[in-house]
Formats: sequence, C-alpha cells, structure tokens
Amino acid sequence: MKLKMNVEARCGDARATEVTLPRGGFKTPIFMPVGTMATVKAMTTDEVASLGAEILLCNAYHLYLRPGHELVESAGGLHRFMNWPGLILTDSGGFQIFSLRQLMSIDDHGVSFRSHVDGSAHQLDPEKAMAVQAALGADIAMAFDHCPPSDAPRAKVIEAMERTTRWAERCVIAPRPQHQVRFGIVQGGLDLELRRRHLAEIGGLAFDGMALGGLSVGETPEQMHEVLEAIAPTMPVDRPRYLMGVGRPEDLIIAIGHGIDMFDCVMPTRNARNGNLFTRTGRVVISNAKNRQALGPIDEDCDCHTCRHYSRAYLRHLFACKEILYSRLATLHNLHFVIKLVGSAREAIIEGRYSEFARAFLAAREQH
Amino acid sequence: MKLKMNVEARCGDARATEVTLPRGGFKTPIFMPVGTMATVKAMTTDEVASLGAEILLCNAYHLYLRPGHELVESAGGLHRFMNWPGLILTDSGGFQIFSLRQLMSIDDHGVSFRSHVDGSAHQLDPEKAMAVQAALGADIAMAFDHCPPSDAPRAKVIEAMERTTRWAERCVIAPRPQHQVRFGIVQGGLDLELRRRHLAEIGGLAFDGMALGGLSVGETPEQMHEVLEAIAPTMPVDRPRYLMGVGRPEDLIIAIGHGIDMFDCVMPTRNARNGNLFTRTGRVVISNAKNRQALGPIDEDCDCHTCRHYSRAYLRHLFACKEILYSRLATLHNLHFVIKLVGSAREAIIEGRYSEFARAFLAAREQH
Repeated sequence: MKLKMNVEARCGDARATEVTLPRGGFKTPIFMPVGTMATVKAMTTDEVASLGAEILLCNAYHLYLRPGHELVESAGGLHRFMNWPGLILTDSGGFQIFSLRQLMSIDDHGVSFRSHVDGSAHQLDPEKAMAVQAALGADIAMAFDHCPPSDAPRAKVIEAMERTTRWAERCVIAPRPQHQVRFGIVQGGLDLELRRRHLAEIGGLAFDGMALGGLSVGETPEQMHEVLEAIAPTMPVDRPRYLMGVGRPEDLIIAIGHGIDMFDCVMPTRNARNGNLFTRTGRVVISNAKNRQALGPIDEDCDCHTCRHYSRAYLRHLFACKEILYSRLATLHNLHFVIKLVGSAREAIIEGRYSEFARAFLAAREQH
Repeated sequence: MKLKMNVEARCGDARATEVTLPRGGFKTPIFMPVGTMATVKAMTTDEVASLGAEILLCNAYHLYLRPGHELVESAGGLHRFMNWPGLILTDSGGFQIFSLRQLMSIDDHGVSFRSHVDGSAHQLDPEKAMAVQAALGADIAMAFDHCPPSDAPRAKVIEAMERTTRWAERCVIAPRPQHQVRFGIVQGGLDLELRRRHLAEIGGLAFDGMALGGLSVGETPEQMHEVLEAIAPTMPVDRPRYLMGVGRPEDLIIAIGHGIDMFDCVMPTRNARNGNLFTRTGRVVISNAKNRQALGPIDEDCDCHTCRHYSRAYLRHLFACKEILYSRLATLHNLHFVIKLVGSAREAIIEGRYSEFARAFLAAREQH
C-alpha cells in the first residue's frame, strides 16, 4: 500500500492516527479546508498553512470546467498552480454533477451533464474522472460515485449504490500517478442495511481509504448521527475513514466519537462570508445591532489573528460596507476555530478523555 | 510647528524630504494607499505595512456616515480601530460631497447633503469637518474645501476658490488634538492666474502642509501637467506639497519632477480589482486570452509576493471565477508597484539623476 496508517490511540470508538502518503502526511482527526476553485476562498495558502491545515480538498468537477485539468497539468499540477505546499485530496465530481442538477442522462457507462458555468455539454465516467484527478496531481483521489438525494426512494438508493460499486471497480484499476492513493465512497442513504451491504462491497476493493458519501445532503443531524453510530465503527480499522461534506462543529465532535478520521466542509468559510462566526458557545451573527459598539473580539478566548487585533464593531462595519477584508478576517477566524477544535479532539483522544471532552463541548453549545 | 520637514536632496524641481510628525514620520516622495472605509480594500494592515507604506489616506466623509466618527473615537481612534501602526491622513469630505453629487445646498456657512448610503440629510461645515477628523484621530487633517468640477465656468471656479479660503480661515483655528497637523487645499481649476492667487491666500494661513485639490477630476493629463509645472515649484519650500487623488504612474513621475512630495489615489487598488495590473512597460489586462496559458508572473522583474508565487494563468483563473484571492494578489502587486516606483524616484533624486530616471520610465511606457 502507498498509504500507511498508524493508529496512535483509541478512546471508545474515537481514534487518533498518523497517515503517511508518498508526498507527505497528516494526523487525524483532521479537517480539510475546501479549495473548490484551487483557492480556499478569501485565503492565501500561506494563511491556510499557518492555521495548521495539512491537506486541502479541491474539486475535480469545478477544475475540469475551469481552468481545465490540462492547463493545471501543464502548470506542473495543482499544488504548484495554487502554491500549496501541503497535500491535496480531490473530490471526483460525482456529487457536484448530481447536486448542481446539471445532469442530462446517466447510465452504467457514465453521465452526461451541462456545465453550470456556460451550459456546454460534457461526459464523465469513472475512467475520465480518475484521469482528471491524475492530471490535477491529487495526493488522494476519490472514486467516481452516484450520490442520490436524501429523499430518494429506496429503489433509487439501491440503483445508485449498485452503480457506485460497478464504477468503483473501474476506478480502482484506472491508471494513476505514482504518488496518488484512492479512496472509495460508501453510499446507501439512511438505510443501515444498505449502508452495511455497500460498505462490504466497497471495503472489498483495493482502496487506500474509505469515505461515507451521501450524508449531510438534506437529512436531519439525528438521522446522520444514527448512520454514523451504526456504520463508522465497522469501517475497516486499517484505513482512514472520511466523512464527506461535514463541518458543523457539533457533527464533527459526534462523528469523531464514532471513529471518523477525516472531514471537509465549506461551512466554516461560507458561514464566515455570510456573517456567521463560530465560538465555543455557539455562533455570533456579526450584523446584529448589539455588535455595533462591541469593542471586544469575536471570542475572548480565541487566539486567532482576527480576535487578537480586531473588534466585533470593526468587523460589523466591514461587513456592512461589503469590504473584502471582512471575508478575510472572518474566514481566518472560522477556519482557526474548526482546525483547533479538531486538534483539541485529537489531544483528548490521546489523553483518554474524549467522551468528557465531547460532552463538555456539546453541553456548552446547548446552553446558548 | 508640529510638523518638521527636512529637505534631504533636490534635483531640478524634484525633492526628497523627511517629514516628522508628533506620532511618526515618513520620507517623500511618498504614495499613500487609500483606506476609504478604514481598510485598504482587500488588504490587511500587516500587508500594507510590509509593502513599505508609512501613511494611509482615510476618508472623513465616509467614516462620518459609517460607522460614525463617535464610534471610532470610542474605539480609541482610527489607528486602533483598523489596527494600523503607521500614520493616517484624512480627507475632509469636501471632495466626496461634491463628486458623489449628494449636494443639496451650499452657502458660506457650510453644505447640506444626502448620505449616498441611505439618503439621510446631513450638514457639514468647516468646524464640523475638523471635529470629525479630530474624533478620528488623524495625524494629518485636511481643510474643508469646495471642489468644483473640471468643466465649471470661471465664475464658479472663483466662487469655490473664495469660499475655500474663507473656510480655510475657520479650519485653521478650529480645535485640534495635540498630535494633529493640518494641510490647506489650493483650488483654482486649470486657470494659472487663479491657482497663483489661491496659493498665495492658502499659503498665507498657518497650515502645516499644502495640497493641490481640484486636479485629476476629469481634465486631460496634459492640462494637469501644465498646472503642476507652473504651480508646484512655487509652493512653499518649507512645507510638504501634496497632489490629491493622483496615482497614474506617469503622472506620479511627472508630478515628482515638478516638486510634489505626497500622493494618494484609489487607482492602484481599484485597477487591480478590475483586472488591470501595472508593469514597468504598461498595464496587463489579466482577462486577455493570451494570459490563459501564461505560466510566468505578471512581471518577470517584479519581486512582490504575487509575482514570486503565482502565474498569470492562475490569476486569470481566479479573476474569471470572481475569487477574492484574485483581488488580494492583484492589489498586493499594484500597490507594490506604485510604492516601489515612488521609492525609486526618491533614490534617483538623492543620487542626482531624476531627469534621466523619469525620461527612461516614460519612454519605456510609450514604446508599449
């Protein structure tokens, strides 16, 4: 295997691991900031690295459309193109094609879809999805999957699941760069029996890691937690476990408790730009009138650059004036919060006190 | 005088000086980045400082409306509010009230205008304009002036000029913070006789520095250069000379040649956001198709962070996707260009080769 995983500590189902890849490594649990268009929105890569991020998620679908994977390849790959010294995981594009509702047709060969940018017609199939991710030079490439909506009838969930397995078999044998590892994606909606069946199918293929897809797509947090509780601890112990698209602080803490290692989500960065800032005791809505004269920081206990140097009143002013600096300072704060939270969870696992840590974190939020 | 100026070198009419104020100093010629809303758009103050900027221009009119000068004062003044360790010059608001066409009425007492933000009615007069700038805690406050449009008939120019003098007499005696100095503004349009007359009037008042207003307001570059050539060298030699609102690279070099010391302009930052990037040989329009696969930097000879780490192709991609990082990297480059250009002009003056320097710079741009 090109991927090596060392489980350093266990605490209940939660675990702390070290993952080593050909071009670098990371420690889990880990949150991967999202750089959809080859940029973590509003951030430089220097800033993202200074927050302690070790691996970014970029998006093969979006980069295939703009600027094109061939261009990125000719620029020396995505790392060099976007000036990122760490690792990159690319999503395959399956989720975007279904969620952006650009789908024209789907069959076992692949999908036809329209670009959400200019309406042009495109085809994507497992081989092409892997070729795009190879051209981008991703350290971790995701299998090309069929992700049904959260309210899909059972027959549709089964159809998507079975197709995802057939596609996964093709993804696993597609050519890949020397340095690249691949993760499979488990579908099956909210049905635990389907999830178990699909986990067995995908787990039987030669993937280096396993992801849970089709969650955080419209179901309630409780529904998602039920799937996590039943499925996450049964995922292969010797491979990283990645919960796709999850980033709500409460969900991170619960999922880590069930043994998830990796996360990505646009929520910290998108919420920041929309005026919602994370704190230990819940969110701050920066536009609230009570922040107009608030000369203290977003969070008195936070040691991020934003909280050390800027008041809520200043941030509210920048937000009201639609100033770019607002998005920068807010994004920096929210990413710092999530990365630090996941780092604290890791420490708690290593120190054997994860359940107390999780209970205290969740209780502090319920009180507010 | 609270302001001390030491003329280090002269080269023709051009000069290199050191200006000392109660809370800090700067060397001229100098370009002041514009932070209209208490932020240099897209930049942190750390970045602006790292580019070598020593003094920013902020805008009393805009900050009076949002977030309000009282709030800024209660936050400890503008420097602390926006986390800027250097000096701040504030424009008085006269220019904005006239140029944003919010004017309702004007008489010798002052002006009534509507907020461009919410339409609310406001009054401003010399005393209030100075009180706002005092509350903001500006190191340099500008007199409250009447700035006519570039195509105003002679009678209107004279009226505005005479009113500006009467207002200046009130500005000079208004209360001010211990650390604050004040600059007067010379009007007179494109009429050299009026400019000379007004320079004598304003120069006779106890201002610490002198500004040329009412230029770069719609006239041709040649018309502006004619006023600069005739007027700038005759401005008081013992006080800083500030050309308001000018930032086109060619104009900076020509104005420095006529003895101007200080500049401000939104052009470097605004052009950056609009896709126009400065280089020694002219501008780069980042959206041009030829930049799609351009893997080199904006300017091979530039040592800014953007040019050291990012290709034109990457910047073009970010611009096409309307990514915030584009505005950041582009602004960083353009500000670096202008600040470095003015710094090179200073060196050339000190080394006694300004006319060769200016000739070479202007010739390189004409060839492209």
